[in-house]
Amino acid sequence: MEVNAAEDLAIASRILSDQGVFDAAGHVSMRDPHHADRFLMSRSLAPALVTADDVMAFTLDCEPCDPRGRTPFIERYLHGGIYRRRPDVMAVAHGHTPSVVPFGLVGTPMVATYHNAAFLAAGVPVFDIRATFGMTDIVISSAERGAALAEALGDKAVLLLRAHGFVAVGPSLPAAVFRAIFTEISARVQLQAVTLGGSIAALELDEGRLADAINLATVGRSWEFWKRRVTP
Amino acid sequence: MEVNAAEDLAIASRILSDQGVFDAAGHVSMRDPHHADRFLMSRSLAPALVTADDVMAFTLDCEPCDPRGRTPFIERYLHGGIYRRRPDVMAVAHGHTPSVVPFGLVGTPMVATYHNAAFLAAGVPVFDIRATFGMTDIVISSAERGAALAEALGDKAVLLLRAHGFVAVGPSLPAAVFRAIFTEISARVQLQAVTLGGSIAALELDEGRLADAINLATVGRSWEFWKRRVTP
Amino acid sequence: MEVNAAEDLAIASRILSDQGVFDAAGHVSMRDPHHADRFLMSRSLAPALVTADDVMAFTLDCEPCDPRGRTPFIERYLHGGIYRRRPDVMAVAHGHTPSVVPFGLVGTPMVATYHNAAFLAAGVPVFDIRATFGMTDIVISSAERGAALAEALGDKAVLLLRAHGFVAVGPSLPAAVFRAIFTEISARVQLQAVTLGGSIAALELDEGRLADAINLATVGRSWEFWKRRVTP
Amino acid sequence: MEVNAAEDLAIASRILSDQGVFDAAGHVSMRDPHHADRFLMSRSLAPALVTADDVMAFTLDCEPCDPRGRTPFIERYLHGGIYRRRPDVMAVAHGHTPSVVPFGLVGTPMVATYHNAAFLAAGVPVFDIRATFGMTDIVISSAERGAALAEALGDKAVLLLRAHGFVAVGPSLPAAVFRAIFTEISARVQLQAVTLGGSIAALELDEGRLADAINLATVGRSWEFWKRRVTP
Repeated sequence: MEVNAAEDLAIASRILSDQGVFDAAGHVSMRDPHHADRFLMSRSLAPALVTADDVMAFTLDCEPCDPRGRTPFIERYLHGGIYRRRPDVMAVAHGHTPSVVPFGLVGTPMVATYHNAAFLAAGVPVFDIRATFGMTDIVISSAERGAALAEALGDKAVLLLRAHGFVAVGPSLPAAVFRAIFTEISARVQLQAVTLGGSIAALELDEGRLADAINLATVGRSWEFWKRRVTP
Repeated sequence: MEVNAAEDLAIASRILSDQGVFDAAGHVSMRDPHHADRFLMSRSLAPALVTADDVMAFTLDCEPCDPRGRTPFIERYLHGGIYRRRPDVMAVAHGHTPSVVPFGLVGTPMVATYHNAAFLAAGVPVFDIRATFGMTDIVISSAERGAALAEALGDKAVLLLRAHGFVAVGPSLPAAVFRAIFTEISARVQLQAVTLGGSIAALELDEGRLADAINLATVGRSWEFWKRRVTP
Repeated sequence: MEVNAAEDLAIASRILSDQGVFDAAGHVSMRDPHHADRFLMSRSLAPALVTADDVMAFTLDCEPCDPRGRTPFIERYLHGGIYRRRPDVMAVAHGHTPSVVPFGLVGTPMVATYHNAAFLAAGVPVFDIRATFGMTDIVISSAERGAALAEALGDKAVLLLRAHGFVAVGPSLPAAVFRAIFTEISARVQLQAVTLGGSIAALELDEGRLADAINLATVGRSWEFWKRRVTP
Repeated sequence: MEVNAAEDLAIASRILSDQGVFDAAGHVSMRDPHHADRFLMSRSLAPALVTADDVMAFTLDCEPCDPRGRTPFIERYLHGGIYRRRPDVMAVAHGHTPSVVPFGLVGTPMVATYHNAAFLAAGVPVFDIRATFGMTDIVISSAERGAALAEALGDKAVLLLRAHGFVAVGPSLPAAVFRAIFTEISARVQLQAVTLGGSIAALELDEGRLADAINLATVGRSWEFWKRRVTP
């Protein structure tokens, strides 16, 4: 495992806490930059507390490569399922922010309310664990559940989990963090637009594609700012 | 009274302030681990300021065992009534958070919007003090009011008090704290889901039961995080 | 002017900022405890910055008793008008909090959503400056405007100013501060209850009267907590 | 470039971050007080981090006068377009606050909900980039786009950008900052008034004009307070 990767991943975890996407729970992972068949993820720990030492490496079967007595998150199968199915994905964030959970509970589709949420314009599917697994504890705690979730995600950037939360993925760690943050903010914007009433002139598909390219090109500016808030 | 119990209870009080469930008011209690017929609760004090020295022991009749000149909360009868009726309850939290109070004012039942709120899936009754006591000052200031409230709670985890607030109970102190926090958050989620409109695909009864077991098994991770924020 | 009174008033100003009732604007005053025909109020200054040295004394005509080169708030006439008409009022707070302003813009009456807002149960009138003065700059900048506002307040605890803000009064400085804070919180609760829909089982008139007496008797506990947050 | 102007502009940028109008993005500019055909604006940087050294001067064609290797914001064309068309404008702020974006997505016009938002009473137009440019990346990245935006602004104080954000302008830097802040707050007030339902008794045109004059005359009090929070 690369030292810099573990350090960046710990920073990402603390950024998502600091920005209100994670609370006492939530986890973010990244594909190992030197081993495409592995991913890195914190041990089971509140995301605000994660440091590089807490980062573990896993195979795509979600087996720890070097446990050293550390307890992994049960939901690592959510991450593993996505890395297995989506070679383009380099990072995955999973949270339960109060503004996003509602969209997994009702029929209203999420839209891309503004340029920063451009990645939503391609559509946001909903994964209802009942469809395949019936009555469960909701947790993505097996390879089967992880695979079903990854299938529901398809080629999209964000997936809603009914009565659970959401997943945001990206072609880089800063991109996945950016998308998780603006999924939360766009959800708030859409809730308020719905309150105002009438149709919502969200980004069209082509606008979303064009604006997303700009976001990916300039995400470093946001990352540096967020990082500064969570590093001593 | 055990020193560790008083210390833990003070931490619970400060956690519920720090997490926005308590404001200048609110109180949390626990059954005395060594005397099942006693409970521990802070003297009348803003919950953010509670330390172990402020914790008093009470009989289930709400008589202080060792007052030492300290003034108890009037509403200790709310706690005593529950401990008397519910031997399984080891801790009780009572707050008035702005997101939860609305559900005690209207006919919309609270639902379990996501796994962290699984304990709501069994149903959330509403206690209207008018039904038994007519026009009052709303305060649960007598054994009779405490008993009526405990009867309204029944075997549930959360009770709404009309025009007042809510009570969350649990099989341990961290569990009651967890439930108070996620009652508040789930209320916010449900308010936003109602704003979006349409039916809400909340946790079903069996999903709630299964997810609650996971929550109770992993509550320590959240407790340690919350505790760290309120201990020097 | 009493030193302690000026000190308490400065603390009240900082409390109302700290609790989110005041932003860069807002002001609180108190009747001079030794001169019932005078009131104390900060010079024109952001309320979070007020210290005892900023407190000026005014006659009920709103003339400064001891200006020492300090610039008074234009809106002192709002305060003077109330002290003149309401001998029972010992303190007045005026703010523009985003949750309360909406109730001055629409036909929905404010209700007392829970015991801490009991003082609202007697009713909350709305003052529309257009009714008497036509097109204005909205500011309560004259004795005539102050008198009209005080007449609209009548014997109530809270008055809404259309397209402007609100006034909360009380029989003591902590009581007025308490009422300003819980006017804001109750407004939020009511907004959310309206979102849920259906009729709202707010406090009835007699419940409000009884609960208000409890609040006034126990306001010291909240005051001490709020004060501790804004004093070094 | 004047030192004091660059210092003030950096403070304005940090104020708008501190007050929640800017997040990781957003930018504010001012006309060069000594060169009416130039404007000052930060290099591309998170607005909370801007210091005087980051401030660059631009011609009204958005060419940097003294780049010194610094990278300008792509969206400087938004600012340049306005300075070119509106000689009365001395400062421009552009943000994407979650409460304001919804008003650019739906048909509900923004109104002036209270005196601090008086500048909205003259009306708030919406700029939809599709009308002139079709499918784009939404960014105001050329002189043509900047000119179209400035035309949409007309003689108003605030312009909404569909699926993007808003622009607030003023006759001084503190005035533009004040307007950006109260555009955000008034948006929140209006959203809540809409939730309550019924017609909204917002400021009339003449009230807005009169109240705006008061705001412009007293903006220094707010500026000093906001500034104190962001200067060491």
